[in-house]
Amino acid sequence: MGMDTRKALSELLAHQKRIDRLSAAAGILFWDEQVNLPPGSAAFRAEQNGYYAELLHRESTLPEVGQWLDTLEADRDSLSDDERVIVKEARREYDREVKLPGEFVARRSKARSESFHAWVEARKKNDFASFAPHLRKALDFSREEAEYQDAEDAYDFFVDVYDPGMSTAVIDPLFAKLSEGLRPILDTILSAEDTTPPDLFRGFPVDGQEAFLREVVAAFGFDFNVGRLDRAVHPFCGGHPLDTRMTTRYDPDNPLDSLSSAMHETGHALYEQGLPTDYPGTALSHAAGMAAHESQSRIWENQVGRGRPFWRHWEPRYRAFFKEQLAKVDSDQLYRAINRVAVTPIRVDADEVTYNLHIILRYGLERDLFAGRVAIGDLPEAWNERSRDLLGFTPASDTEGCLQDVHWCEGMFGYFPSYTLGNLLAAQLWYAAKDTLPDLEEDFGRGDYTRLLGWLRENVHSKARRENANGLAERATGRPLGTEALLRYLRERYLPLYTT
Amino acid sequence: MGMDTRKALSELLAHQKRIDRLSAAAGILFWDEQVNLPPGSAAFRAEQNGYYAELLHRESTLPEVGQWLDTLEADRDSLSDDERVIVKEARREYDREVKLPGEFVARRSKARSESFHAWVEARKKNDFASFAPHLRKALDFSREEAEYQDAEDAYDFFVDVYDPGMSTAVIDPLFAKLSEGLRPILDTILSAEDTTPPDLFRGFPVDGQEAFLREVVAAFGFDFNVGRLDRAVHPFCGGHPLDTRMTTRYDPDNPLDSLSSAMHETGHALYEQGLPTDYPGTALSHAAGMAAHESQSRIWENQVGRGRPFWRHWEPRYRAFFKEQLAKVDSDQLYRAINRVAVTPIRVDADEVTYNLHIILRYGLERDLFAGRVAIGDLPEAWNERSRDLLGFTPASDTEGCLQDVHWCEGMFGYFPSYTLGNLLAAQLWYAAKDTLPDLEEDFGRGDYTRLLGWLRENVHSKARRENANGLAERATGRPLGTEALLRYLRERYLPLYTT
Repeated sequence: MGMDTRKALSELLAHQKRIDRLSAAAGILFWDEQVNLPPGSAAFRAEQNGYYAELLHRESTLPEVGQWLDTLEADRDSLSDDERVIVKEARREYDREVKLPGEFVARRSKARSESFHAWVEARKKNDFASFAPHLRKALDFSREEAEYQDAEDAYDFFVDVYDPGMSTAVIDPLFAKLSEGLRPILDTILSAEDTTPPDLFRGFPVDGQEAFLREVVAAFGFDFNVGRLDRAVHPFCGGHPLDTRMTTRYDPDNPLDSLSSAMHETGHALYEQGLPTDYPGTALSHAAGMAAHESQSRIWENQVGRGRPFWRHWEPRYRAFFKEQLAKVDSDQLYRAINRVAVTPIRVDADEVTYNLHIILRYGLERDLFAGRVAIGDLPEAWNERSRDLLGFTPASDTEGCLQDVHWCEGMFGYFPSYTLGNLLAAQLWYAAKDTLPDLEEDFGRGDYTRLLGWLRENVHSKARRENANGLAERATGRPLGTEALLRYLRERYLPLYTT
Repeated sequence: MGMDTRKALSELLAHQKRIDRLSAAAGILFWDEQVNLPPGSAAFRAEQNGYYAELLHRESTLPEVGQWLDTLEADRDSLSDDERVIVKEARREYDREVKLPGEFVARRSKARSESFHAWVEARKKNDFASFAPHLRKALDFSREEAEYQDAEDAYDFFVDVYDPGMSTAVIDPLFAKLSEGLRPILDTILSAEDTTPPDLFRGFPVDGQEAFLREVVAAFGFDFNVGRLDRAVHPFCGGHPLDTRMTTRYDPDNPLDSLSSAMHETGHALYEQGLPTDYPGTALSHAAGMAAHESQSRIWENQVGRGRPFWRHWEPRYRAFFKEQLAKVDSDQLYRAINRVAVTPIRVDADEVTYNLHIILRYGLERDLFAGRVAIGDLPEAWNERSRDLLGFTPASDTEGCLQDVHWCEGMFGYFPSYTLGNLLAAQLWYAAKDTLPDLEEDFGRGDYTRLLGWLRENVHSKARRENANGLAERATGRPLGTEALLRYLRERYLPLYTT
């Protein structure tokens, strides 16, 4: 490696680290906005976010960065494999950022904050009309961004942002096959008698829920020395691998939801905390993409957290916390409640079987919005129509329909498919781990997750962004992303509960 | 005003607003570091702070700012009085910032974070030796900064940073007179019998303390719609007028300390929340200086919060919260406990009478450190010697001596005098308010603080940085900062309690 190349590399690495640290500060501010912001300070924070986003954008697009990348690319042969990964990803990010005018970034950031607060209000009041202008703006911002990027297809561009290498050409057949495969499973379940009395879980004190949760989260391997778990309206995992901020919410009358949410966010957090930190801000320290991220949240929430072995260990502890509340619930009822399948209007409340139908609904609508086949004003009706088609019911209100999710208000179009891609990957990883680690689930019966976490660290976390979701699947499970594993898993877990 | 001047002004105002918003983000990060930071994330946060400080420095010192200021200064006659205030202060800040190299700012910010954590450890372990290198570094940073500034006297330079227009030439005679005036008051008190049984305040549940505090804080006028009150090891008031973050701490066995601290921070917060917000980031939106700030915290903590009228209203409520704990404390004992004077090693635990002696001790030591008359290694002994002189005792350990305060570890030399200057100003403002507002204290007996707050808003808060501490004193109280009002106040409040 020549001196110029070496210098360009070290400058690039220093720059990426700096951007990583400054982005981490933005991550803490985002967390603070969700967890702590006084109600009257929202507009003020929106302004701060706008200025900060513009500043970060400017720092990310310094002309020197382009020059370092040119130097490194011209001397590509002298780079190691890892160095090439760093340069490739840095180029991808730089090119994407540099095409966006700073004023656009600031304008969009401010609009996003405003749109978020408008969405909160609109959802509260079931008032789609008041939100429609913000949604239109969000869509316009995305279209404008895609134009700056000279994207061939605007929607595909955003899919690729969240999941490098992914596209509608890959997703379409996967989702079609999944939809087809889910149908008979769901039909069997829905035609069976629902044996779960729904009203058993009432009056679980929030403090007890939180104390129990914290034990589970710590047992999974979350490192509280460099992370926190707080309360927020929307559960999420934010911050940075070196300062991880998870949130969850508690409802005394829906304790299983809090538990699932916390295990889900823990999966995200374990991925973040398992990422290598040697080259901060580069592809060697970043997660592979959102599908890979969702695979990690799902595997802990579902494959682990809804399984009998998990509950074999934790049920006595859960009963110790909620003796009275669970007095009339036997072990089988508890397990059935945890794995109850029922069509519900709200995605985040959905069970594992119907969840992907919620995603397929949104995926179709996003594409239609981008293609102009559905107008913003017609969204509620289009949503309801698809809900009837896919899920068999009409939402009682827009609050339970097209206003339920936060994503679109913040311009996160193209993100939804990641959830289902993540479910596909989670199931594939699950069977691969079980094949490699004999009697894996017996560990869970002892509350021991070290072998599973170790396997995920090795096969997913430590790879950082060297591979995308498909690459991870191929290397770790021997085949590309497909639907077989998920359908097999759903059949194995749910059909025994719903066939007599 | 010509077009160029008009343009320069509007550019400058936009820039100041931007810096204000970006600084506010830094304020939230500081609050987060004190309130939320996971223990293992300290070094990571120190890095973030370093990068962020450098970025803010760079943004504050853009060459355009200097050009706008030149244009405005050249056309000074066309500016209004307020515009001149804005330009003068912007010039002061710009010149100060522009002289500092960015790498110095980043280096110092990182060192400060490290020094803070080293100080926490050293204080915990009573290990001055482990902290000494950090303190030496902090002092070197300050000397280096003063050199960049071509300051005639390094210590005076920092005094002026915290309190514009203030200097050792003004402080020396004030502190000498105060010291002299305090002596007979303290002698009288110490020779009287201490009638407060010290062990009455035990086992006050923290939740009750917090609930009571919040009522008091809200009654004073703190706006929770744009502010928060949280728990932290060190009570402080941070954030921004539009998102004010106060903290306090609770000790079940020292409830009066928590209460005083909270009232103190509320005074700071009321000042912040009372500042005009029309010209963010300029002298028209900034507090006058730290002495003025301390005057506001002190007036609410002491002149209001330790008075009989305050307690006439709040005592029943306090007893409702702590019925059992206060069962054996009669009203007179409660009042005496609140106004107990006793020499204690820790400044922040000190009563109003001895507090200023703690400051005079630090002020003398700071000057000697800067002048090289005291070496870092000799600081513990120098501290103890002065403690004997001024307060009559030798601290039992460095933790109770020269390691007790956070200021020096973060390089805040020259800040300490502000506390006593603030006490002087508070007493002057107090008598001026009482002279103007007939029967002011009767309001407090009804839990009503609107007239006092209104007077402070008008005479202090709304002035922003148009006047410094001395200017505020002269306009609002008819005389410059002096010692008479404070000495009068201390005599009136304390001598009746300690003479029989």
